[in-house]
Amino acid sequence: MHSDPKQRLAVVLVDTRNPLNIGAAARAMSNFGFFDLRLVRPYSAAYEEAVSAVGAADLLRRARVFDNLSSAVSGCSLIVGATGLGHRVFEHPLHRLERAGRLLRRHLQSARAAILFGSEKFGLSNHDISHCHWLLHIPTRPEHDSMNLGQAVAVTLYELARSPAAARRLPEAAERATEEELERLSLLLEQVLSLSGYSDFSRETSAQDKTRRFVRRLSLASRDAAICAGMLRQILWKLSHPGQ
Amino acid sequence: MHSDPKQRLAVVLVDTRNPLNIGAAARAMSNFGFFDLRLVRPYSAAYEEAVSAVGAADLLRRARVFDNLSSAVSGCSLIVGATGLGHRVFEHPLHRLERAGRLLRRHLQSARAAILFGSEKFGLSNHDISHCHWLLHIPTRPEHDSMNLGQAVAVTLYELARSPAAARRLPEAAERATEEELERLSLLLEQVLSLSGYSDFSRETSAQDKTRRFVRRLSLASRDAAICAGMLRQILWKLSHPGQ
Repeated sequence: MHSDPKQRLAVVLVDTRNPLNIGAAARAMSNFGFFDLRLVRPYSAAYEEAVSAVGAADLLRRARVFDNLSSAVSGCSLIVGATGLGHRVFEHPLHRLERAGRLLRRHLQSARAAILFGSEKFGLSNHDISHCHWLLHIPTRPEHDSMNLGQAVAVTLYELARSPAAARRLPEAAERATEEELERLSLLLEQVLSLSGYSDFSRETSAQDKTRRFVRRLSLASRDAAICAGMLRQILWKLSHPGQ
Repeated sequence: MHSDPKQRLAVVLVDTRNPLNIGAAARAMSNFGFFDLRLVRPYSAAYEEAVSAVGAADLLRRARVFDNLSSAVSGCSLIVGATGLGHRVFEHPLHRLERAGRLLRRHLQSARAAILFGSEKFGLSNHDISHCHWLLHIPTRPEHDSMNLGQAVAVTLYELARSPAAARRLPEAAERATEEELERLSLLLEQVLSLSGYSDFSRETSAQDKTRRFVRRLSLASRDAAICAGMLRQILWKLSHPGQ
């Protein structure tokens, strides 16, 4: 058993018609770190050549082909079918992808699972669905429910790979300016404004506070604060040496 | 100004080479309810015919074409560039999609925004990026960062359309069995087990409790509880009339 939960997920494409879609699914799997691709009765044996599998040719070559769904999902203790809602009534529990992702991640902590995607034209058959523990659907508009297969695979795997904590995280690049940098900048700006006779802030007794607040409002990156300071120093020099 | 925040988002494809990718982007937009597609210098005027735009031909026909980025994003007060990380160093703040989605949704509550996607081969140029307020990246594996354009658009729009609350919601189909249904089922099962001499539960003084707990653990749908009850009634009848 793999120690990485992602390696416990099999992506199973059933009756896929277009080899480009198999390639696109493989590419999305590789993008998001899933590598176990299983194909049930693909219409074309040419899928290994799919040009849409940019960067995922290896994964595609290692894909396993089965002639029935039972053998494709053997070893998996949770089988989930991806489906549009259409006008069908399902007897299975049906989860939106947001919740399905949570349930799948929990299962993958300790056991194997498979997600099934049906053919481009018909989706999963009732027989395919009878193998499933439950179904997931991507929250598309009811008026246009039918997704491209490669895009449906990408969106589903993104939900499994996404990190709720990352939504609260600070930006990764562009480190923010420190308090010291901002204070130096405020002082420089104050001098420049004063020398240049800027009236909006200097009319106030609290010109210094206004300048300080203004600089903080910009929420500058450290690098940009340094650039601003350089500009202001140059302007300050020019203002102090008007003849030169 | 539209009342639906989704109608305040423009999806801008810059220098796209493959008309199929434009079609795929249009399809994902239509799936997730975004309709304002803008194209900057598409390589082929044939994009309107893109077969990958299943169900989104109208949206594609209404797409606007621009010969420079400035005019394409006019009217938008937030411009976000979608980019891989690659080996580039960005001076812009860079947010993972999870966080970018939150920031974009907040902005779209009251104002217009645009998300830029660059060409398949080169992504966004430094010039394109200079128009951006910040950048977003989809959390792919560093070893395989390059996503298919149509899939990148689909994943990005899914993040904007997804509902964190849905992760906690109960299944939409397959209404759960009520307490009364489960209690009737437990009683039936208890009778059947007792008549058939099942020992595992009857050895216990608390056979009834064990049966009840077992039935609840199955967390049956209402419909399936009814089916089980029907089966048990039949079995019970047969057990009570062994000769018939």
